[in-house]
Amino acid sequence: MRISFEEMVNVMKEKLMSYGVSEEVAYGCAKNLTENTQYGVASHGVNRFPRVIAMLKQGSIKPDAKPTLVNAMGALEQWDGNLGMGNTNASICMDRAVELAKQYGIGCVALRHTNHWQRAGTYGAQAAKAGCVGICWTNTMPNMPAWGAKNRRIGNNPLVFCIPYKDDYVMIDGAMAQFSYGAIEAAKINERELPVPGGFDKDGNITRNPVAIEETWRVLPIGFWKGSGFSVLMDMLATSLSGGMSVSDIGAQGDTPTDEYNLSQVFIAINVVDKEANDEAVRQIIADMKSSEPADEGSEILYPYEKELSLYSESLKNGIPVDEGVWQTVLKL
Amino acid sequence: MRISFEEMVNVMKEKLMSYGVSEEVAYGCAKNLTENTQYGVASHGVNRFPRVIAMLKQGSIKPDAKPTLVNAMGALEQWDGNLGMGNTNASICMDRAVELAKQYGIGCVALRHTNHWQRAGTYGAQAAKAGCVGICWTNTMPNMPAWGAKNRRIGNNPLVFCIPYKDDYVMIDGAMAQFSYGAIEAAKINERELPVPGGFDKDGNITRNPVAIEETWRVLPIGFWKGSGFSVLMDMLATSLSGGMSVSDIGAQGDTPTDEYNLSQVFIAINVVDKEANDEAVRQIIADMKSSEPADEGSEILYPYEKELSLYSESLKNGIPVDEGVWQTVLKL
Repeated sequence: MRISFEEMVNVMKEKLMSYGVSEEVAYGCAKNLTENTQYGVASHGVNRFPRVIAMLKQGSIKPDAKPTLVNAMGALEQWDGNLGMGNTNASICMDRAVELAKQYGIGCVALRHTNHWQRAGTYGAQAAKAGCVGICWTNTMPNMPAWGAKNRRIGNNPLVFCIPYKDDYVMIDGAMAQFSYGAIEAAKINERELPVPGGFDKDGNITRNPVAIEETWRVLPIGFWKGSGFSVLMDMLATSLSGGMSVSDIGAQGDTPTDEYNLSQVFIAINVVDKEANDEAVRQIIADMKSSEPADEGSEILYPYEKELSLYSESLKNGIPVDEGVWQTVLKL
Repeated sequence: MRISFEEMVNVMKEKLMSYGVSEEVAYGCAKNLTENTQYGVASHGVNRFPRVIAMLKQGSIKPDAKPTLVNAMGALEQWDGNLGMGNTNASICMDRAVELAKQYGIGCVALRHTNHWQRAGTYGAQAAKAGCVGICWTNTMPNMPAWGAKNRRIGNNPLVFCIPYKDDYVMIDGAMAQFSYGAIEAAKINERELPVPGGFDKDGNITRNPVAIEETWRVLPIGFWKGSGFSVLMDMLATSLSGGMSVSDIGAQGDTPTDEYNLSQVFIAINVVDKEANDEAVRQIIADMKSSEPADEGSEILYPYEKELSLYSESLKNGIPVDEGVWQTVLKL
């Protein structure tokens, strides 16, 4: 089924307010989850709404909390999320990083005691729309083994780089795991192999079989040892710069999905001084990439986030696709 | 064979000076190539020295050039490398980013018209030794196909995150290609398969066979489509922020190794305000990682750069290992 932007936002906003969330935060959160769905990331959009409500109920998201400044040192600031709503907290902090970038050229906000920011790319795009390069990352609960290990002690810690381009942007929003749990689950349900290796089977062999991966939960980091290293460093930087919780601390809170709270995040914005020159540089790189010889004859080489941007445009025309069961669940919350 | 630090530095320094390089730059370059060898990265250490000399001869490295400031906007600066020596240019720019970070909390230098910086991790470690988090990346010549493409139009663009830890640091220095050309070549010579998939064969299948990969040069990005996306974004950011050459522009200079000049790089430093708290955060993350259940019984989980740091210590005790043929070549330059 398809739902209009207004309806999806309003339904979620009203539900959030009924759990004590202020109208401003409820609107920001509902709008973000709706937009994430429009970009084709329903897993961090409307599909994730029941978990947000569950976390409000259990008290790990505080309905009335807002982020507060802890330390300021010129272009670098430390904020405390006070366990408020994750996506609106993150948006406030990237806004602040952009303000700092407009003043100093580059700005950085490190945020502790916050919650899941949903679609990581949201905050890169936000910086780009304000005329800045956006770089940001978060830590997560332990959900991936370190390279050489069997059990899950590091996070999949998504990393975002985003650059303004014309009225939009080019962006990579990539978690350090090759596949999300959701993608592995979907492959299992559809009885399909993963398109590339996604984890280890119980004999320690790398496999594309989602059933074999779910037996071990030894999911693969991107680039094997490399993604493991990037994940660890992003956790160290987020924890140290924010003074907040590490992946290990988050894991100590419990291992069910709603125990993923109290996260640490980093937001960096860099002012794009010459937008015209920037757009020309980006245009030239896109054009060069697109002139590649495609691996599959007749197929098009997409630039990073081109697909998501086109899904967004499509949803503006035709409404937002949503799973009917998910929508019924949302209506009953 | 093993050579002392002093001998390796002095031999390379004298050779560089004989090609018109100033004593200061010659010493900095020779010291960097020597240290890279000490960290086990001879491919960007002494083994790379003949190419540096070749590039001085052909004029793509200018022996007497130094980087100059182009634009300053608070904590963000644009520098021009004037085609000077790549590793000493990069070191000057990370030093400047650190100075900016000490003043503003975070600092960023974007450098254009520079040359190969050799071991990317050098500059992350440099920031860490000065009490800062270091983040940096470079673009390269086109050496990897974009995801979905057959021919090489994007760079392997290494990315570095480094954090101070006690008197040293923890660091990830990872190129966006799963394997370097050198690693694929070495596997071929040793008649070994790569440890994980490294590219495509001529039928478009993912393979660990180095001979099959060399037939296509369709090397794999880390994380498949993800590393392709990170590579493209890092090129866009480096090109736009520095006002310099893109991977595509660099490719237009030619496709032999010595045509890889005129690069664009980004250096970010973030001041670590509370070193004691930082070290405790890093220590806890390392301890948690190391308490993982190892995939191979009795093996140790290493933290990022632990192996390289131990190779460095070992070289201080026993001298620096160098291939005898390489050293004879260096002596004859």
